[in-house]
Amino acid sequence: MSLRLAVLGAGAVGGSVLDLAGDYGHDVVAFADSSSSAVDPAGLDPSAVHDRKEREGVVGDADPEAVFDADYDVLVEATPTTLGDAEPGFSHVERALGDDRHVVLANKGPVAERYADLRALEAESAGTVQFEAAVGGAIPVLSTISDLGAPHVTAARGVLNGTANFILSRMAAEGLDYEHVLAEAQDLGVAEADPTFDVDGIDAALKFVILANVLSDGKTEYALDDAEVEGIRNVPGTALDLAAEDGRTVRLIGEATADGVRVAPRLVPQGSALSVTGTQNIVQLETKHAGQLNISGRGAGGPETATAVLSDVSRLE
Amino acid sequence: MSLRLAVLGAGAVGGSVLDLAGDYGHDVVAFADSSSSAVDPAGLDPSAVHDRKEREGVVGDADPEAVFDADYDVLVEATPTTLGDAEPGFSHVERALGDDRHVVLANKGPVAERYADLRALEAESAGTVQFEAAVGGAIPVLSTISDLGAPHVTAARGVLNGTANFILSRMAAEGLDYEHVLAEAQDLGVAEADPTFDVDGIDAALKFVILANVLSDGKTEYALDDAEVEGIRNVPGTALDLAAEDGRTVRLIGEATADGVRVAPRLVPQGSALSVTGTQNIVQLETKHAGQLNISGRGAGGPETATAVLSDVSRLE
Repeated sequence: MSLRLAVLGAGAVGGSVLDLAGDYGHDVVAFADSSSSAVDPAGLDPSAVHDRKEREGVVGDADPEAVFDADYDVLVEATPTTLGDAEPGFSHVERALGDDRHVVLANKGPVAERYADLRALEAESAGTVQFEAAVGGAIPVLSTISDLGAPHVTAARGVLNGTANFILSRMAAEGLDYEHVLAEAQDLGVAEADPTFDVDGIDAALKFVILANVLSDGKTEYALDDAEVEGIRNVPGTALDLAAEDGRTVRLIGEATADGVRVAPRLVPQGSALSVTGTQNIVQLETKHAGQLNISGRGAGGPETATAVLSDVSRLE
Repeated sequence: MSLRLAVLGAGAVGGSVLDLAGDYGHDVVAFADSSSSAVDPAGLDPSAVHDRKEREGVVGDADPEAVFDADYDVLVEATPTTLGDAEPGFSHVERALGDDRHVVLANKGPVAERYADLRALEAESAGTVQFEAAVGGAIPVLSTISDLGAPHVTAARGVLNGTANFILSRMAAEGLDYEHVLAEAQDLGVAEADPTFDVDGIDAALKFVILANVLSDGKTEYALDDAEVEGIRNVPGTALDLAAEDGRTVRLIGEATADGVRVAPRLVPQGSALSVTGTQNIVQLETKHAGQLNISGRGAGGPETATAVLSDVSRLE
């Protein structure tokens, strides 16, 4: 079935959803950046929208709010993640659910910081909320938990921040220190100018908070404040050298268990599942009866995250 | 929703489905081995059934055929995989679909050897067919393909036979030859007395044939005869030694691509995703827009495979 998508957020993820929706048989009928929107009930032409954005700095003539007046089936919320009240993302979700539309989130804020509020709105709506894209980009971790059944998964553990992992991998491989590799990662576009979210473990913690919310199935609500978080800024190059002498390396490992959420640099054996390199992500799920499952792949990137969004959309049919 | 299961096959998988169904909220109302069956509309008591099987060699007083007369929602077909006409498994599936019941297969035969026949029967039935347990035990490869959408997955590759992988891992780690490690694997119960299916690559090929059928989405039908298959009997210990000098090792790698199905021993880098050790399995999915996904875990075992069966059952609701 072809669904009509309204996409909020014109960054790498929103832009890729616009590009790839047709490949999944869906139409983007509304598309907004922070200052403008384009609406076409017959489906927008991706290249025309991208061209205008590049040429004029806007995606269309309308106000961003106009997307909510469009005749759409699914709101794709791909605006930047914000903490605390998770605004303005949360209000976008509230409005779509209030209009009985489905919501697919790439934005981590509403589902990490206001999970119970979100589920309460969903319970009142004919629409449902999906958010595979908020955890690990292309890695289908939430759909796997859903398939196994949350009560049959006892813990999630892994590497869910590609920037921090790239920095630690490079420090270990080249014997370079943190500041040097961070500068290199910023040159390559792997790290942002302000790398706080990634290197201080906040981005990884938000993802493990979401996993904790999903695994607890509403019994306990988690938010970023509930997580113990330590980043990688203070990992000295010498720690990686010492680890290597012992056949190990350091990774920024997150965990969501019945005891809560923790993110911190940890020693892991070289060549083990958790020692993924570069911007790869991995999640290990501990199951009650089927041992450990490992799922790894590209944890970020426009087309990768858009694939998770569009898989969520297809699940709504 | 609680579903009533009829389980055919009292081996490790069928027995574990009997044990674990209650944990998923379902009841086993009929259970058969090759010579007898037990039926109870209120749900069978697993330990009573296991006790009787151990004490008397039968699971109950009735004929195996009696399971089809039980009031059940889902047939779990967990009898041994057979080649060619895939009987008697295929007839079991035919009878259940003819009665408009759902079918969950752990038996690879019907879905590897008679995929088009199976889909034709399903099209005529109110029941559906699921078969996650037939490919990679606990590894959720089919549900991941289904979530991504088969047209968005271009190839599947990996290690899907734990016995062959155990033998190759041990040969590489201990510098022992094939015959020696095979005998050890047989002592440990990792290899069967007749190891043909595993060491000649047939079991792995059946799984990749199933993957090829799923990926081609009915456009091309594959069966075992269409696969190029080479096993591990002729891999000399010296090949593993030479590979190790070069930072590589040998694994029995299967592939399902648009070009067909191949299974053969191949060189892979040590420490790479495909170099899983022991009885671990791994599948790599190549996606159109999201790069490569790796999924690894326990590819066999009673509770592991039963978990896949019961996840399939829960998907029917």
